[in-house]
Amino acid sequence: MEKLTHKTMEDFAKSCGVSRPTLSKFFDDPTSVKPATRALIEAALRASDYQPNLYARNLNRKRTRNIGILVPALTDPFYAEMVNRLELRLRDEGYWPIVISSHGLPELEVEAVSTMLSLKVAGAIAAPLGQKSDPRAFEKLTQNVPLVYFDTYIEGNTPFIGNNNHQSVATIVEYLCRSGEPPVYFDIPHVNHNSPERLASYIATMEASGHEHKVIKTIAPYTWDFERVGYEQMDAMLKAGKLSFKTILCANDRLAFGVMAAAFAHGLKIGRKKGDDLRIAAHDDHPLSRYTCPPLTTMAQDFASMTASSVDTLLTLLGDTDAPVRMIASKVSLDGTLVMRQSA
Amino acid sequence: MEKLTHKTMEDFAKSCGVSRPTLSKFFDDPTSVKPATRALIEAALRASDYQPNLYARNLNRKRTRNIGILVPALTDPFYAEMVNRLELRLRDEGYWPIVISSHGLPELEVEAVSTMLSLKVAGAIAAPLGQKSDPRAFEKLTQNVPLVYFDTYIEGNTPFIGNNNHQSVATIVEYLCRSGEPPVYFDIPHVNHNSPERLASYIATMEASGHEHKVIKTIAPYTWDFERVGYEQMDAMLKAGKLSFKTILCANDRLAFGVMAAAFAHGLKIGRKKGDDLRIAAHDDHPLSRYTCPPLTTMAQDFASMTASSVDTLLTLLGDTDAPVRMIASKVSLDGTLVMRQSA
Repeated sequence: MEKLTHKTMEDFAKSCGVSRPTLSKFFDDPTSVKPATRALIEAALRASDYQPNLYARNLNRKRTRNIGILVPALTDPFYAEMVNRLELRLRDEGYWPIVISSHGLPELEVEAVSTMLSLKVAGAIAAPLGQKSDPRAFEKLTQNVPLVYFDTYIEGNTPFIGNNNHQSVATIVEYLCRSGEPPVYFDIPHVNHNSPERLASYIATMEASGHEHKVIKTIAPYTWDFERVGYEQMDAMLKAGKLSFKTILCANDRLAFGVMAAAFAHGLKIGRKKGDDLRIAAHDDHPLSRYTCPPLTTMAQDFASMTASSVDTLLTLLGDTDAPVRMIASKVSLDGTLVMRQSA
Repeated sequence: MEKLTHKTMEDFAKSCGVSRPTLSKFFDDPTSVKPATRALIEAALRASDYQPNLYARNLNRKRTRNIGILVPALTDPFYAEMVNRLELRLRDEGYWPIVISSHGLPELEVEAVSTMLSLKVAGAIAAPLGQKSDPRAFEKLTQNVPLVYFDTYIEGNTPFIGNNNHQSVATIVEYLCRSGEPPVYFDIPHVNHNSPERLASYIATMEASGHEHKVIKTIAPYTWDFERVGYEQMDAMLKAGKLSFKTILCANDRLAFGVMAAAFAHGLKIGRKKGDDLRIAAHDDHPLSRYTCPPLTTMAQDFASMTASSVDTLLTLLGDTDAPVRMIASKVSLDGTLVMRQSA
């Protein structure tokens, strides 16, 4: 059966047997018309090729079809990859993602939240800065639009989808212990809850396996420039003398990039082969980690599930799915997967 | 002299000696009031600490204070760095940047342009896909808002700020020739005008210096996944036998990441020292290029000037500067700088 053709809204309204204002009301909010009327319009939509002009409509709506995506930095390959996936999925769902970065700065994060509100986004998916975030900005955001956190969260009842740092760090620590010398842990500035959680899991796993833990504490002040932190601190350690260990677990891949570059500059051979000087492993598996020399052994975060859960949860909050809002889990913890490459 | 304090718009209008509607008109568009009135208000603004509520104002304006930034991919460290700089500069100028990526896909680029228009952005700064872009989408954009291209452009009169590929590639080819074996050129898929320009400059420079040119043509179809392209093609070449050359110039840093990883996997030593197997150089100096093993010798694009020129040009088009629109150059070409590191 060929689909019916309707060019204008009047045209389509007439064929549904409803008035144009009723049709308009339906497009603004399908639940605002009587159930029977809604069923009538939805059946007619399925039987025709009518495409409402959503751009024009959005301009007249209280809420747009835009979804704000807020991250600490787009130059961070982990967030770049997540933003990439979130954008594609949201577009598939008929939303228009808008990306805003806070550049690692609390004052720009507050501004970013205001910008999203001024753009009248329908909802938001955010990885807040964490430790330095102003909770009042996010409180205001949640009071106005549905919000889902990923990777990091601000205390409260907002749904959160993050990595299970307990599981992921334990897995890679156990792998390193059983395949060679137990690792020392290279920490990063504690910008959010992930870094202390990873550190705690390292210590707990080492103790449980009867090994002494050894932590290279970060000497950097608050910063998101992890490659530089890793390079400078590793370089300083190597200049000060020979290392007393042969295996390093870095708090994330970005730190490992810097640590590897400094080790290479000092002539150390990184790898898991006999004769190599140093094993280096990390956490995240961001998109460039397979291209380091040697390729980086790391715990892959579950990018696919983090994207799917974040968007599914937001769609439920927006009333776009059949799932009831009360079924939303307040915290979702995703397990990581060990990716064995040549660096450790 | 202490600045005068005004809390409300009425309050401030009264102190200027103008009506509230006139003041409102001025904030919407300073050119819409009489020059004398404008001068009066501007003098009063300088003498007081009055801050109009821009969020509230924008909601009532035809145009917002938002500027759209469109790039092919946020997972590309070159664009991530440019977006980062453009955002910070635009915020400094009192605008709110909105970032949209086209994910390397022409249909999403068309959608991105529509999204910017639906958000009523005041202007846009775009790096279009290039070869695969739909020119009609950008024509529509230029008809509606001031637009500036950076890195890549669509034919027409829109201002463009890009890299001087002729100068930059010639510089690094000459450096490689005078410091060792003349380079072969590793090409990428020609996604936009930069890749054929760089290739042409390589060939011309080699010919001018009396060397034979040798190009490793890309076998990949249209893609923006340059690290993968470099890895797979280099890996295939090394599996097929020994290389007949010792110096490679890659079309960009992302390609070099893949080429270096494949060379490393085959046990080749990259570097410019005696005994090293292969020199690898590239183009762009994106933020991670200093952390490869060894650090990548490359032509640094002038990120700072590209950002400054793009934003300055847009501000002029928006009437935010004293420079007349007719003084805007239609094409600005920025020279690159040789960054010598250990890879070549």
